[in-house]
Amino acid sequence: MDFTATREMFDLPEGVIYLDGNSLGPLPKAAAERISRTVQDEWGEMLITGWNRAGWMAQPSVLGDRIGALLGAPTGSVVLGDTLSVKIYQALAAALHMCPDRKVILSDSGNFPSDLYMAQGLIAGLDKGHELRVVAPEEVADAITEEVAALMITEVDYRTGRRHDMPALTAKAHDKGALAIWDLAHSAGAVPVDLTAGKADFACGCTYKFLNGGPGAPAFIYVAPQHADTAQPALSGWLGHEAPFAFDADYRPGQGIERMRVGTPAVLQMAALETALDIWDGVDMQALRKASLALGDLFIAEMRAPCPDLTLATPEAHAMRGSQISFRHPQGYAVMQALIARGVIGDFRAPDILRFGITPLYISQDDVSAAAKILAEILDQKLWDRPEYHKRAAVT
Amino acid sequence: MDFTATREMFDLPEGVIYLDGNSLGPLPKAAAERISRTVQDEWGEMLITGWNRAGWMAQPSVLGDRIGALLGAPTGSVVLGDTLSVKIYQALAAALHMCPDRKVILSDSGNFPSDLYMAQGLIAGLDKGHELRVVAPEEVADAITEEVAALMITEVDYRTGRRHDMPALTAKAHDKGALAIWDLAHSAGAVPVDLTAGKADFACGCTYKFLNGGPGAPAFIYVAPQHADTAQPALSGWLGHEAPFAFDADYRPGQGIERMRVGTPAVLQMAALETALDIWDGVDMQALRKASLALGDLFIAEMRAPCPDLTLATPEAHAMRGSQISFRHPQGYAVMQALIARGVIGDFRAPDILRFGITPLYISQDDVSAAAKILAEILDQKLWDRPEYHKRAAVT
Repeated sequence: MDFTATREMFDLPEGVIYLDGNSLGPLPKAAAERISRTVQDEWGEMLITGWNRAGWMAQPSVLGDRIGALLGAPTGSVVLGDTLSVKIYQALAAALHMCPDRKVILSDSGNFPSDLYMAQGLIAGLDKGHELRVVAPEEVADAITEEVAALMITEVDYRTGRRHDMPALTAKAHDKGALAIWDLAHSAGAVPVDLTAGKADFACGCTYKFLNGGPGAPAFIYVAPQHADTAQPALSGWLGHEAPFAFDADYRPGQGIERMRVGTPAVLQMAALETALDIWDGVDMQALRKASLALGDLFIAEMRAPCPDLTLATPEAHAMRGSQISFRHPQGYAVMQALIARGVIGDFRAPDILRFGITPLYISQDDVSAAAKILAEILDQKLWDRPEYHKRAAVT
Repeated sequence: MDFTATREMFDLPEGVIYLDGNSLGPLPKAAAERISRTVQDEWGEMLITGWNRAGWMAQPSVLGDRIGALLGAPTGSVVLGDTLSVKIYQALAAALHMCPDRKVILSDSGNFPSDLYMAQGLIAGLDKGHELRVVAPEEVADAITEEVAALMITEVDYRTGRRHDMPALTAKAHDKGALAIWDLAHSAGAVPVDLTAGKADFACGCTYKFLNGGPGAPAFIYVAPQHADTAQPALSGWLGHEAPFAFDADYRPGQGIERMRVGTPAVLQMAALETALDIWDGVDMQALRKASLALGDLFIAEMRAPCPDLTLATPEAHAMRGSQISFRHPQGYAVMQALIARGVIGDFRAPDILRFGITPLYISQDDVSAAAKILAEILDQKLWDRPEYHKRAAVT
């Protein structure tokens, strides 16, 4: 599959090599017009009737299904809304409620901190002696014991790009009587995911990274069909009610995945996301994966030759890798600032990770080679040593 | 104060009298250009650096302060994010944690159902014998006893427009040792609110109704300064962490109101909201209130003459009224459909409420008189009896 066509579907700034699509995907060319339509023709002209006439109310399910199709999830098992942290809370609360006799949430130190924080907040609120047990990524499999209520893991490590074996860990969890919750933040649009074959119980993710839905795009949640009508919603908002517009005094959960909706969806964000999903319609995930691995291999090779001492943080084995390449450098922050000053945008993750998203939809071999050359030059000439690269911004 | 200037700041469709700004405010004229700038110049050009360079990360606090200024809240006590249901959950969870020895959440039957649902979900999760006690609106004051942990009330009833006496109920709550949580969904931008003088402990609201922030605009939460550094965040997401970008393994709540942030904010929605708040900069809330009451009185008078039997659901006393006028009619749904077919947009709320938002920013005396004439005609000629007005849409 040739990705020059998808590259043409994005607005990429001149002179920039964008290796941070794992943090915020770029602007689809169709987004501006689509958002403008939602603003002027829908909000402006339809006003309140847009909820029906423009389909706003249905959009979290309609777009949820389109994301589900990328993840091997059946129709009606994915819905959009809120942020990933909120969706993790919903999944975890439902899972703990399904396993009342077990007290351990098992996660790993490669999980995104917000997932751990949400678990900590939930545990404090429940006040029932739950424990968040955090082990090293490579120790997760052995730590799945009969104490575990829920395994809560981000499939691809946000720092290193290390990828867990979702089907194997899920199978082990099930074998021990635990449920498996997967955070797909760095998987959706990055690697082939099959939630059905992988037998995940719950999954969540965000849509502004590899899916390119735009800054603040809504999160998604998947609930396996066998749990969807019994999962108890902790965040029991009106749009998850069986009949939201009956305005009953008592909550009754909606059918299936609908119960995971909470409040009013972010209509403008969904308009942007829709144009991003249009691009995904034509993409073969297996071809994308092949291209991603080839670009990653190229980046590693191009750095190894001039900088043999640079520490690769990402596993080289394809099966253990997501769609990013990370290196460790003691001056990682300043190195990244020097890169950005030269038009190569990646990001830094404390304490020492240089992180580069590999996104074949709009990044080519030439981009990767050029970025590698610039990085090698910065390291070779210690260009990171300039004072201006050591100033810290609010968001790094 | 003359509101012809503010009316000019909105795009209102031709031939429509829009009396549903209490459900979704209309489009500010400046919004389309502002959103387009965020999409093309910020997302498109700045990409990930927009979080700092375009101020996206600070926006929930910056806009929160601007909303706080409309509500008598000091700088640094209001932050944007999520939906109103989620913010209610946060406020209620924090309040219950502050009153561990009391088990009653007191609310009323005029509260928006989602608030009640969120309380029910929280209670089920806590599983500590809490009770949601729901009384009639006029019985709230007497029901505030020493059993009550938190009073959770929507100031203005979404159906009837009845307004509670916030300072009096809050004072009674405090007298009995309870905390007061106020939902300002139908207050913010509708009536003068003074959270400081009213001594509210927590307050939440949405920004897409009277504030005109657009479909899916984020909610806001206020925490009184004396609680802000001790309130425990149930939804302990990374952006509420003391140092989000340190990526620590353990959650430590941020300073003050910042801890009520959860996940990535909805950047496009905030751009729209910003233009709506620009309009509010020039508005005198006391003048707005005076105009709102006059328009409401006019609507009541114009309906009473031709339809003396129509039941007014809104209290006539100014002090007990928000900024909407509601009537009860047994065929309310069909009456509203007949009105909408004639260009008068209000909404219907089950079981029998015809609800009309009174929004002097863009609604004039002529609009109100014209709407009243059309409604009188529909009732007089029983035009609601046509079959096409009895079809139910998904969202009503």
